[in-house]
Amino acid sequence: MSYIPSAELAPRVLQGDRRAIARLLTRAESGVAEARATLDAMFALAGRAHVVGITGVPGSGKSTLVAKLVTEVRKSGRTVAIVAIDPSSPFSGGAILGDRIRMGELAGDSGVFMRSMATRGALGGLAKGTLEVVDVLDAAGFDMIIIETVGVGQDEVDIARAAHTTVVVSAPGLGDDIQAIKAGILEIADVHAVSKCDRADANKTIADLKTMLALGLTHLDREQWSRRTGPDPVVHGKAGADPAYRVDPDFRPDVIATSSVRDQGVTELLSAIDRHRERLERTGEIEKRRASIAERRLLAAGEGILHDAFARHRTGRLSSLLEQLRARTLSPHAAAQRLLRELNLGGDA
Amino acid sequence: MSYIPSAELAPRVLQGDRRAIARLLTRAESGVAEARATLDAMFALAGRAHVVGITGVPGSGKSTLVAKLVTEVRKSGRTVAIVAIDPSSPFSGGAILGDRIRMGELAGDSGVFMRSMATRGALGGLAKGTLEVVDVLDAAGFDMIIIETVGVGQDEVDIARAAHTTVVVSAPGLGDDIQAIKAGILEIADVHAVSKCDRADANKTIADLKTMLALGLTHLDREQWSRRTGPDPVVHGKAGADPAYRVDPDFRPDVIATSSVRDQGVTELLSAIDRHRERLERTGEIEKRRASIAERRLLAAGEGILHDAFARHRTGRLSSLLEQLRARTLSPHAAAQRLLRELNLGGDA
Repeated sequence: MSYIPSAELAPRVLQGDRRAIARLLTRAESGVAEARATLDAMFALAGRAHVVGITGVPGSGKSTLVAKLVTEVRKSGRTVAIVAIDPSSPFSGGAILGDRIRMGELAGDSGVFMRSMATRGALGGLAKGTLEVVDVLDAAGFDMIIIETVGVGQDEVDIARAAHTTVVVSAPGLGDDIQAIKAGILEIADVHAVSKCDRADANKTIADLKTMLALGLTHLDREQWSRRTGPDPVVHGKAGADPAYRVDPDFRPDVIATSSVRDQGVTELLSAIDRHRERLERTGEIEKRRASIAERRLLAAGEGILHDAFARHRTGRLSSLLEQLRARTLSPHAAAQRLLRELNLGGDA
Repeated sequence: MSYIPSAELAPRVLQGDRRAIARLLTRAESGVAEARATLDAMFALAGRAHVVGITGVPGSGKSTLVAKLVTEVRKSGRTVAIVAIDPSSPFSGGAILGDRIRMGELAGDSGVFMRSMATRGALGGLAKGTLEVVDVLDAAGFDMIIIETVGVGQDEVDIARAAHTTVVVSAPGLGDDIQAIKAGILEIADVHAVSKCDRADANKTIADLKTMLALGLTHLDREQWSRRTGPDPVVHGKAGADPAYRVDPDFRPDVIATSSVRDQGVTELLSAIDRHRERLERTGEIEKRRASIAERRLLAAGEGILHDAFARHRTGRLSSLLEQLRARTLSPHAAAQRLLRELNLGGDA
């Protein structure tokens, strides 16, 4: 199979040619220099799709829910692409959950495109490659693009900032450690989905979420709460504390009860996702989101240029800087200033 | 309480003054510009401590094991500082696990220093602030510095690369989703600790780890393994696949069975950690680790400079770039090149 230049793949991608899309995605993911101009063109053509981030802690039943949601999106007549970021080895880059198999029932549908991505390892985070993958799928004409992640912390924030609508999946019956992690991602939700609502203890999970939202909290810290004598929970942060991210003070996320076993709540979940998109457009918040995404992408691209330059020069021009760092005769900050001064990172004007 | 200049805190930090240390750590964590020169001086004076990363999936019993290990380190006559990175809200920056309370029994011991850090949010990852915190504690004279994290993926890799010795804590009886995440971090272990070995099913966890190591694998993928007819597990990556990180082909991590309930295995765990450090020194691999850490820090510092410049100029000189990005008339890559060209990121020579 000969190498087809990315510029030749581009028109086929725009026509929805699945093999061309798959090839260009691989180049976006691995940062192939030859694909740069084509990916920039895809960025210029993108911006039409509804980008939905779906995240949840391990054991939340998120993956099953995504499969049900995809079927629902298709029923509504829309096409959908799924970008699944796996908890794979950062060293080997191999994906370990069998997404393609799990999503097998959807494999024959040309209105569905499924892509597993490895989380990035040593250099470069999640966001950069993922967002260029989203650009390609957006330019290829998919109506909705779902970014699915398992994980905690930074990755989830990056998704919240890359997606128009972020769904956080909670489940009843998870352990304390998991609940503690969950607290950190609840506040990025535009829509809350509670899975496994065939279980009796799901009512408590739903009630907790609704209490939290009614109090205007980003999460409930039960440990600190129970230590206090008064009835008030500890407030760690108000929703909307980050003005660049959320500007609509009246917004309160929907809480949707779902059950994959009983096939319940999925229609309601899609409605809630659609309502959120409509609200973004109606209130004008969509422009704030786009501005926030633009900032993230500028920074991520700057980091990418820095990393590329580093990779090119680390055994050459940078080796004396690194030697001085190892000897602690130069600080990381001073060394980085020299790196930025000596390498022509901005290219020629 | 008036603001004491960082340069005045420095001599007190070097004498081990706990309040001075705490203040300088806060400045390192929040990236205060005034502290830059002092933190660079701390970097120059650091390099003596044994830095140990301890990580594990939610529910692994890692935090309890760290508390036991700290007591053991103190018994051996060494001082120890713990940097605990909490699964806190990326927006509010608040820590949610009650570390200080959990570690209460050690609070009166002047040979122990405990610091909770929030995971970073929007800009800047885990590594940069954490490593400057480690510099300060190292310069302050602590013999061992333990970096404890809950999490998955990138954070764990960053720890492996910042620490001399990385301990991965596994536990019996975790769910499939958790096991899948665990697979991604097993390969960064220099020492494996299995917790909760009072449980009967711990034997299987230990046996699995030993099988994996004996086969030279980085992890066992049971899902893919069980789908195959043959007896061989799928090989995702060989230990040592990253030559910058591990160069000793004969190295095989110890697997230590521990039980916090029965107070078993903690002495053995500390011995394994100490043996690993001795091996690093004996084989010369310590120099490779230091080189790898120097590279990480140079890149992280470069990113820091980029982020600072971005924060300074985003409403000024960068606003037209961002506007073009929002309009998709300029790609993120082209905009980042202009950013690097137009801002004098390297400062004056």
